[in-house]
Amino acid sequence: MTSFVERLEQACEANRSLVCVGLDVDPERMPVPDALEFNKGIIDATQDLVCAYKPNLAFYEALGLPGLRALEGTIEYVRAHAPGVVILGDAKRGDIEISAAAYARAMFRVWEFDAVTVNAWGGKDGLQPFLEYPGHGVFVWCRGSNPGSGDLQDLLVNTPHGIVPLYRHLARSAAEWNEHGNLALVMGATYPEQLSEVRQLCPGMPLLIPGVGAQGGGLDAAVRSGTDPRGRLAIFNSSRGIIYASSGSDFGAAARVAARKLRDSINQVLEAEGKGWS
Amino acid sequence: MTSFVERLEQACEANRSLVCVGLDVDPERMPVPDALEFNKGIIDATQDLVCAYKPNLAFYEALGLPGLRALEGTIEYVRAHAPGVVILGDAKRGDIEISAAAYARAMFRVWEFDAVTVNAWGGKDGLQPFLEYPGHGVFVWCRGSNPGSGDLQDLLVNTPHGIVPLYRHLARSAAEWNEHGNLALVMGATYPEQLSEVRQLCPGMPLLIPGVGAQGGGLDAAVRSGTDPRGRLAIFNSSRGIIYASSGSDFGAAARVAARKLRDSINQVLEAEGKGWS
Repeated sequence: MTSFVERLEQACEANRSLVCVGLDVDPERMPVPDALEFNKGIIDATQDLVCAYKPNLAFYEALGLPGLRALEGTIEYVRAHAPGVVILGDAKRGDIEISAAAYARAMFRVWEFDAVTVNAWGGKDGLQPFLEYPGHGVFVWCRGSNPGSGDLQDLLVNTPHGIVPLYRHLARSAAEWNEHGNLALVMGATYPEQLSEVRQLCPGMPLLIPGVGAQGGGLDAAVRSGTDPRGRLAIFNSSRGIIYASSGSDFGAAARVAARKLRDSINQVLEAEGKGWS
Repeated sequence: MTSFVERLEQACEANRSLVCVGLDVDPERMPVPDALEFNKGIIDATQDLVCAYKPNLAFYEALGLPGLRALEGTIEYVRAHAPGVVILGDAKRGDIEISAAAYARAMFRVWEFDAVTVNAWGGKDGLQPFLEYPGHGVFVWCRGSNPGSGDLQDLLVNTPHGIVPLYRHLARSAAEWNEHGNLALVMGATYPEQLSEVRQLCPGMPLLIPGVGAQGGGLDAAVRSGTDPRGRLAIFNSSRGIIYASSGSDFGAAARVAARKLRDSINQVLEAEGKGWS
């Protein structure tokens, strides 16, 4: 079986891209009313420029069962038209073990996501059911891209490794919990020093880095801090900056321009460091 | 508009009950294959003995879209047959603000839950969108009933109020964030000292206390520690211990016996403290 890390690396290599596009459907911003039709337009326009699509389940749940049917159709569409691209379910699920096992089943067996984001508040036994799907990636939400994330994540905690911010303790714990090699982390681009620290603590772990688009994180610093020594193992998510690049009927073409610009900007940083695509 | 706390108190008063029944549908344990039919049987058998039903969304999502249709039917059935009973969506949702707003809409406008459980890892700005539905309850997952919850929740953190366990800091923060009076906490029954501390930090806040049934938490200690000085504002959840009390066709009758036993056991503790129902 291909491991999740191999699958992700293949997806990046195939399109020479570390770009993840967030498919956050919003009826107030979509130029077409149907979420599936909108996503198809985005996917058609960007599939050769990205390594991953990341639907955030919140936006589909907010549309009720029709929204979830649109999510189902979106996943099928990516599998049919862009089979090499990774689908990452941004779900931030987490619960005690028995419930977490049901969520893991929902994410990996029902939706068939390649990877999901999870919330580690319930500790290791709440993550374990996700980790036991070794072909799938489990991205633990470590440090958010929003200011409020600091309320808990930046608190100084007493650990056997000294007094450290909580997100850093979580990153270190995640490295210990990674028995199946499928654990990964979500680290906001808005705090490059933190990204750098976590990259060092978890050298072999993929990082999902949101906040490079609409949230305004500095891309160059995020690419230098977030990638591994080969310039890989980090994927950079933009949602609104790409999918709502135009509010008109040219939304697909505009998304393509924005996705290409992000891909090329990342690749320029990699090339400047001697870590471009072969 | 009735506040959520008033709505919850009315539900408790009406059935003289602090019992919440967790509707965690599991195909491997249900005596009938259809989740909605199973839930109807449980609701018919227990609706005069409980203050709340708590479907955990994990178990419905694990059944795919048919599971979510069963959840929809279950909510409609409670509204039609037990309109005074509170429906608490156990969803543990949490994300950055824009996504949290979508989840809040999903929970309160699409599913129309009276209350939900949420995850505060994203800090106050991730909770705010839920809190802005003042007629609905927002139960922050503070201290879990599972051993692994201690991995993060029990870490000692440095705060302006001294060095305290993280769950206690979260409880104190939640009391500060409770601007709309609709914030509540989830506190496992398995750790009565912790329950007691949090009750004192958050005197007016409802507590959802899981872990009194299958998870084996001591009920007497949980009732004494978790309720307010009137013997109210705490609800005690049992899922498996009630809904799977029998694996046969008498599952409704068996659930009724188990729910009545839990209600009466709680009420005996309240009466012994002079806090029984008037």
